[in-house]
Amino acid sequence: MRDFSIAVDAMGGDYAPFKVVRGAVEAVEREKNIKVVLVGDTGQIKEILDRMLYDHERVRIEPAQSVVQMYDKPAVVFREKKDSSIVRCIELVREGVCDAFVSAGNSGAVMTAAIVYLGKLRGVLRPALGMVLPSLNGNILLIDAGLNVDCRAVHLLQFAAMGYVYKKVVLGVKKPRIGLVSNGTEPNKGDTVTREVHKLIKRNFISFIGNIEGNDIFTGKADVVVCDGFLGNVILKVSESIPEVVVNFLRMEIKKSFWYKLGYLFAKPAFRVLRRKVDYAEFGGAPLLGIKGAGVIAHGRSDERAIASAVLRAAFHAQTKLDAAIERVIEKVRF
Amino acid sequence: MRDFSIAVDAMGGDYAPFKVVRGAVEAVEREKNIKVVLVGDTGQIKEILDRMLYDHERVRIEPAQSVVQMYDKPAVVFREKKDSSIVRCIELVREGVCDAFVSAGNSGAVMTAAIVYLGKLRGVLRPALGMVLPSLNGNILLIDAGLNVDCRAVHLLQFAAMGYVYKKVVLGVKKPRIGLVSNGTEPNKGDTVTREVHKLIKRNFISFIGNIEGNDIFTGKADVVVCDGFLGNVILKVSESIPEVVVNFLRMEIKKSFWYKLGYLFAKPAFRVLRRKVDYAEFGGAPLLGIKGAGVIAHGRSDERAIASAVLRAAFHAQTKLDAAIERVIEKVRF
Repeated sequence: MRDFSIAVDAMGGDYAPFKVVRGAVEAVEREKNIKVVLVGDTGQIKEILDRMLYDHERVRIEPAQSVVQMYDKPAVVFREKKDSSIVRCIELVREGVCDAFVSAGNSGAVMTAAIVYLGKLRGVLRPALGMVLPSLNGNILLIDAGLNVDCRAVHLLQFAAMGYVYKKVVLGVKKPRIGLVSNGTEPNKGDTVTREVHKLIKRNFISFIGNIEGNDIFTGKADVVVCDGFLGNVILKVSESIPEVVVNFLRMEIKKSFWYKLGYLFAKPAFRVLRRKVDYAEFGGAPLLGIKGAGVIAHGRSDERAIASAVLRAAFHAQTKLDAAIERVIEKVRF
Repeated sequence: MRDFSIAVDAMGGDYAPFKVVRGAVEAVEREKNIKVVLVGDTGQIKEILDRMLYDHERVRIEPAQSVVQMYDKPAVVFREKKDSSIVRCIELVREGVCDAFVSAGNSGAVMTAAIVYLGKLRGVLRPALGMVLPSLNGNILLIDAGLNVDCRAVHLLQFAAMGYVYKKVVLGVKKPRIGLVSNGTEPNKGDTVTREVHKLIKRNFISFIGNIEGNDIFTGKADVVVCDGFLGNVILKVSESIPEVVVNFLRMEIKKSFWYKLGYLFAKPAFRVLRRKVDYAEFGGAPLLGIKGAGVIAHGRSDERAIASAVLRAAFHAQTKLDAAIERVIEKVRF
């Protein structure tokens, strides 16, 4: 099998460049056929690498002058920061030097730059952000996780199609069950667009299980959870915040009794594992689907482990020729 | 102070009529100036009452022949079940016999019947369901919690106005902070309707804190959380399901070690309190706002305590003359 080269935005994310560089090197250690190109400030990256043992053949630095900040507007990548680590990563993919890119930086800027510089796959109207999430019944893919607002039915149908292919080809589920987020399970529930999407997905996918309600997203009833980017963003943010709220309430209760406190002490490591389990940063990032080339957006809070798994996921994504599979399905769906 | 009479749908909810009847009696015991009219099957209600001690002056039965089932379509209340406990409750309010009603039954049917039989307040375009929820910073009111889909900006502005008045008049917050759910805090974030609503609320309420993201709903950043009913339903269902998912993950972890298990045993009562804290059934139900007369929709899972608190909330709602206050504010808002 040939090597896969991944461009990693060394300057993006809350713990960049330190944990990003170390995570990229960890990925190289874990998989023999992966190379990484660390894009960013040569001096800073070199300093981190110098204190590590790694395969010099498979890790190299690509200089980039500027950094897109978290507060920068997405369009800044075209006006002022064409030489940023984000843009350089994406250019490496466009030039064919790298097979995929990973960034934990300003996600709006990454998505905008990727769509413009790499272009959309044939037939895709709007690329979408997939997001791999934990559920009680294996991982699920939420699509769109925040890229598109004001969607029409045909856009959501395409999100379903892209999610289906990703879940099947990259995550290895044979017949991914598709669920459409709505405010009731009956086909006539939902707003106008959702009711229309319901009909379209039903017509095109036999593995469509119909509408699913909010309480069935994380039970894993569906492998692919379809919604527009506005709703997807709110679902993600709500679900990410609740464990913290729950733990806070629990802590208040636990303070009330010596015995609760003692119990908490014993069970504390389990809580730590839990936090890891529900921390989306751990889940290998969010694939950007519908663009030419593989790109993974890692969570801003990504640590070494999260970056490593995003790099591995991106490499696997590139390796599967997902893009061709998406184009084939998009061509087939009828609306 | 005069007595307030509350019509209670004795046949609605998962634990009806037993826990509903007992909960209504509990409310009467807790507040001197409350009377309840238990609406439903006389025989069944009487059997439950006969085994209780209560003030016969303040509890009476109103017969209703049929029961709207959870699976019935809302419109069934007009066609086949005009003599149902739900409809009879609402008629008692319309006739002026009761000041408010409480039902834990089929919420779609309750809302439809209430809007049609009681009518809308002057100027209100669409009544909405408020929902009192726990947060890390006191209770919040989510509006609309599931009644309206395909909303225009002016509808959401009115939801904000009604929520503001309810939070102020019934829940006693002096200057309720209003937050608008969006996929980013900046005013330009959100879909077309949300961006328009942002401007409208800003123009009308100085206590508007702007857009809030999903992760800030349950931290209690805003007292009144505004969204359409589709989104509101999904937010509620997601947030209600996550503690269960978290506890399930935690349980899997805890099984892995004797010490975790031991710790869990000690801390278990704290978990029980937690469950209660995050169980929406405990929060006194959801007020239906914008209709003529006070109505509270209790959670289907309501037990005695939940029904009692819904009855007390409904009585307080009726007592505050909220409706007149809503009409005044609705008249003042500009769009």
